[in-house]
Amino acid sequence: MRPGRLALDSASAWTAAGYSDARLLGAVDRALRRLEGRTGLIFPRVPSADSAATLVVRADGPGMAVQGVEEDESYALDVSERQVVLHAPTVVGVIRGLETLLQLVDADRAGWYLPLATVRDRPRFAWRGLLIDAARHFEPVPVIERNLDAMAAVKLNVIHWHLSDDQGFRVESRRYPKLQQLGSDGRFYTQDELRAVVAYARDRGIRVVPEFDMPGHAQSWFVGYPQYASAPGPFTVAREFGVHDAVFDPTREETYRFIDGFVAEMAGIFPDAYWHVGGDENNGKEWSANPKIQAFIARRGLKGNAALQAYFNQRLLAILTRHGKRMVGWDEILHPDLPKTIVIQSWRGVASLAAAARQGYSGILSSGYYLDAMSTAADLYRVDPRPDSLGLAADEAARVLGGEACMWGEAVGPETIDSRIWPRTAAVAERLWSPRSVTDPDELYRRLAVVSAQLEELGVTTDDHTIRMLRRVAPGLDPAALQTLLAVASPVSLGGRRFTSPAMQFIPLTTISEAAVPDPPAAREVAAEVRNLLADAPRYGAYRESLARTFGAWRDAAPDLAALAERSPLVADALPVARDLADLGTAGLEALAYLSAGTAAPPAWTADRAALLARAAQPKANLRLVVLPALKDLITAAGSPRP
Amino acid sequence: MRPGRLALDSASAWTAAGYSDARLLGAVDRALRRLEGRTGLIFPRVPSADSAATLVVRADGPGMAVQGVEEDESYALDVSERQVVLHAPTVVGVIRGLETLLQLVDADRAGWYLPLATVRDRPRFAWRGLLIDAARHFEPVPVIERNLDAMAAVKLNVIHWHLSDDQGFRVESRRYPKLQQLGSDGRFYTQDELRAVVAYARDRGIRVVPEFDMPGHAQSWFVGYPQYASAPGPFTVAREFGVHDAVFDPTREETYRFIDGFVAEMAGIFPDAYWHVGGDENNGKEWSANPKIQAFIARRGLKGNAALQAYFNQRLLAILTRHGKRMVGWDEILHPDLPKTIVIQSWRGVASLAAAARQGYSGILSSGYYLDAMSTAADLYRVDPRPDSLGLAADEAARVLGGEACMWGEAVGPETIDSRIWPRTAAVAERLWSPRSVTDPDELYRRLAVVSAQLEELGVTTDDHTIRMLRRVAPGLDPAALQTLLAVASPVSLGGRRFTSPAMQFIPLTTISEAAVPDPPAAREVAAEVRNLLADAPRYGAYRESLARTFGAWRDAAPDLAALAERSPLVADALPVARDLADLGTAGLEALAYLSAGTAAPPAWTADRAALLARAAQPKANLRLVVLPALKDLITAAGSPRP
Repeated sequence: MRPGRLALDSASAWTAAGYSDARLLGAVDRALRRLEGRTGLIFPRVPSADSAATLVVRADGPGMAVQGVEEDESYALDVSERQVVLHAPTVVGVIRGLETLLQLVDADRAGWYLPLATVRDRPRFAWRGLLIDAARHFEPVPVIERNLDAMAAVKLNVIHWHLSDDQGFRVESRRYPKLQQLGSDGRFYTQDELRAVVAYARDRGIRVVPEFDMPGHAQSWFVGYPQYASAPGPFTVAREFGVHDAVFDPTREETYRFIDGFVAEMAGIFPDAYWHVGGDENNGKEWSANPKIQAFIARRGLKGNAALQAYFNQRLLAILTRHGKRMVGWDEILHPDLPKTIVIQSWRGVASLAAAARQGYSGILSSGYYLDAMSTAADLYRVDPRPDSLGLAADEAARVLGGEACMWGEAVGPETIDSRIWPRTAAVAERLWSPRSVTDPDELYRRLAVVSAQLEELGVTTDDHTIRMLRRVAPGLDPAALQTLLAVASPVSLGGRRFTSPAMQFIPLTTISEAAVPDPPAAREVAAEVRNLLADAPRYGAYRESLARTFGAWRDAAPDLAALAERSPLVADALPVARDLADLGTAGLEALAYLSAGTAAPPAWTADRAALLARAAQPKANLRLVVLPALKDLITAAGSPRP
Repeated sequence: MRPGRLALDSASAWTAAGYSDARLLGAVDRALRRLEGRTGLIFPRVPSADSAATLVVRADGPGMAVQGVEEDESYALDVSERQVVLHAPTVVGVIRGLETLLQLVDADRAGWYLPLATVRDRPRFAWRGLLIDAARHFEPVPVIERNLDAMAAVKLNVIHWHLSDDQGFRVESRRYPKLQQLGSDGRFYTQDELRAVVAYARDRGIRVVPEFDMPGHAQSWFVGYPQYASAPGPFTVAREFGVHDAVFDPTREETYRFIDGFVAEMAGIFPDAYWHVGGDENNGKEWSANPKIQAFIARRGLKGNAALQAYFNQRLLAILTRHGKRMVGWDEILHPDLPKTIVIQSWRGVASLAAAARQGYSGILSSGYYLDAMSTAADLYRVDPRPDSLGLAADEAARVLGGEACMWGEAVGPETIDSRIWPRTAAVAERLWSPRSVTDPDELYRRLAVVSAQLEELGVTTDDHTIRMLRRVAPGLDPAALQTLLAVASPVSLGGRRFTSPAMQFIPLTTISEAAVPDPPAAREVAAEVRNLLADAPRYGAYRESLARTFGAWRDAAPDLAALAERSPLVADALPVARDLADLGTAGLEALAYLSAGTAAPPAWTADRAALLARAAQPKANLRLVVLPALKDLITAAGSPRP
């Protein structure tokens, strides 16, 4: 970037100077309409023939007919005082460059402008994905579409759509209609909707990789077609989450004919070269309990259930190959009997991925990118699919194709999913696009706040999630005390979540925990203020008043919430967390007093506060207070002898 | 209602004790899922066979095959300690009763419950509608669906869907595909979508009355089919709002064959007995300018253009009758040549409606219910389709079928439309359902706040509109000062709106004015506080501090907004309003000081403040300050001599 500006106004015309098609024109149109929404300006609906137009878009060609891993996504952006030229070898490159262009737009009193800049950009990894699990809870098309918009805004290029699992079968099959009729509770995507989503994604330079998990995670298939299961049935749609026993019977030829028919049907809907078979968490119980299956294993000389799954995968691979698809699957599909053309998606970790790469398998990383772990954006940002420490040779390194953030669906629904995906997934997106050397977390958070606000223009819910959900959870009640609480509380991870009923899928996602967000910005501010205060020894003046206000608000929220709880049992659930926070607020105020007074707190005080920290570290109401390390530092400092 | 409660918990079963069908079961299911979202409880997915279930739903029958004006919507609800029984003659009655049931649910520390109550309920008017104009700005299906949910929540029963106008033709015609191909900018409802909306509405007890405005307001038809216009063409989609000249040629038989083909196609999609022909605002210019048309008038001995429109309407009526439809149209279609079976929708007023009723015509009122006038809920609530003052005989009175709130689309889009419809339309809905005697505005506002919060559970945006839009308009900027401003500012009425470009349809709906809401609650509070303060003479102590805080915030918002404006030209647009508000704040503080001191303000001060009030009454940036009457009272009191 360099000094100077290109002013934008309603006279700013644009032109398509190179290759042009409906996808390119649509992308420019959407970008200009978004820019209109931000600026209040009106830009032309149609391209100008004038090469002196303010925005010149020049594509060399269309790119791949079906976007693939090999697609060239590079672009060049040159902003001069006269015009901005966006040049890319493909339409997808143009789509990427338009997002950068929108990020560059700025304003001051004199109006809207682009700063003068020269950008040469291309992604570090070719596979930059987001998994959305629409099986555990269904996510209607508008939810998928707005998340595709947000993905495109941060240059992600794969949606990995988890479309079937024990708890639901989510696509319409005309060949096997009992799949959705009996396996979905009526919540599934019609084939028209699937095609529309594929087209919507393609328009945004995003590949759609469908996942139909098998042989396990397949209970919902068997509600309509029990004959392909390894146990006699009948089956119902699972409501409990976790690993279930239901598994395809890999010993019967009918199973493969059924799968072949299904893949043939879906291959006409999903054009992507890849097909995700799942393959994870088959506990083998039904196989072990079925004498016919065990006899098959013995007859074939297979080495137990794992070898049987490899046999199943080989058969599955043949089916996929026949329909022009390459296989992707979770770690468990990796088996020496399978060829190097398969792609391993690792939930186990980079070491597992590196081992696969050394054996010649391509892979993508998801370990560390599980959004339902509710970790911070900085934590996600630290995870690198190909850290130097792996010591891979160049050809091995090239097999690490990228990564995918994973939004598993057990504890999210249409009203909450955005807030769990965004803005944190923007951190993953940058990790996968930008050079390995870009790692500063403070700089990440500065830019993440900007991106988060911009994502809302696409209809996803980011920063306003908490207040919106509080209006939903406690309509008509003053949300101030709840906001104070949720400013420093995160939902617990999926693993730590307590489900209040075995009918887990039916539990309403409208509790106080659902209104919380992972990595709340205010908690980071408290931690930063504590760091600054402690660095200001022996005065301890920095941010003292601000912290005192915060701690006072924590203390005062508890009685306010107790009053609200009289009118709302849902608020009542959160009272134990409010009590912890109130005690932490009081402890914080006391610690500030000791530090100001220059006298160390007595050991009994410190010990009591340590017990408080331990108690507060226990999640309650599926909420986790995320300010405990800062409070611990403050309490420790208050109890330490002064010079 | 009477003392006592029926506790609700996850053990609460329900049963369908009478007639049952998919529509009834679906309605109960949706109601229970909404109740789950509010309560965190889990209710059964399937009805119990046990007549002792907590909720007993008993319908006597399905009601009309196609819901009509004659549908019986009554229901009875009896909540005892043992169970709640909802009994209705029709499924639509059940749907109405379920909404009342949801409104009755309450909670305290002991949990969720229904208060004991006996309800016997039926609507005062049979036609209770909401017009949504999807022509001037397109409203995608999800917008329509969430508004249908909200309509059902307040027991409205007609969506009047304005589907074509000069600025857009919004439905897919397979017979005449150039209608949508050339007349919609690609923004139209597919036939599948139209059918889905009709089914969605029917499930909620709502009729869908389509409006295809003709002979005027028809420019978008002629982009694809200029041969049916009265001027030679070619035509483009209109971008400017207001009355256009384009009008069907009523003298050619081809015109009627074309309309007949179109009605035949659409009659298969819209099952309602009524069809809205529009008929308004034909300026007759193209007719007057076309010698062939004038010759036709002369040949037939018609009395000018008005008679020609009546001729057109007679031909149109014959077409509609052939396709089993009854005609509805705006005031202008009323003509002695048309039979009494037509229904007049009045934008002119109750007197016009009463005159029609005396002539034997049925009618519905929309005058006074125009939501784009941005009047208050209390104003809308005061409008009665059949006030006593009309002096209608019983048979005449019966011809007043009801009313429709109208959401014209010139200045709303998907992001803003909800906030212009809701919660105010709930006031219209109550006027049309409840007894004429229910008129207390304070009681209206008390309940409106509750309803407004509950509507958000259906996905419509009500109370959080301003903050959400401010995040959109000024992303990343502190919204506090803007919120202070918009708490007492309303968008101007459609008639008062200044459009910044002749390409009106393209003007982005993301200005500060778009973030404002009509009838902001905070403005009512200021007015109430001023009333209380003035009633507390000569002490003037009531609400003094609160008002001083408010006035101080008005004064302080201006410099804050000036600072924001340095970073946002959109905020800069609102600075003149901020300056007015700051001056009003200062004036308010001074007035409080005079009142406290017990000395009258000098006449020069009062005169200056009157000039300020006059200046502030001029809308700026499409915003109108709605606290001026209260400020005027305060200033007048400050300048009045004391005893």
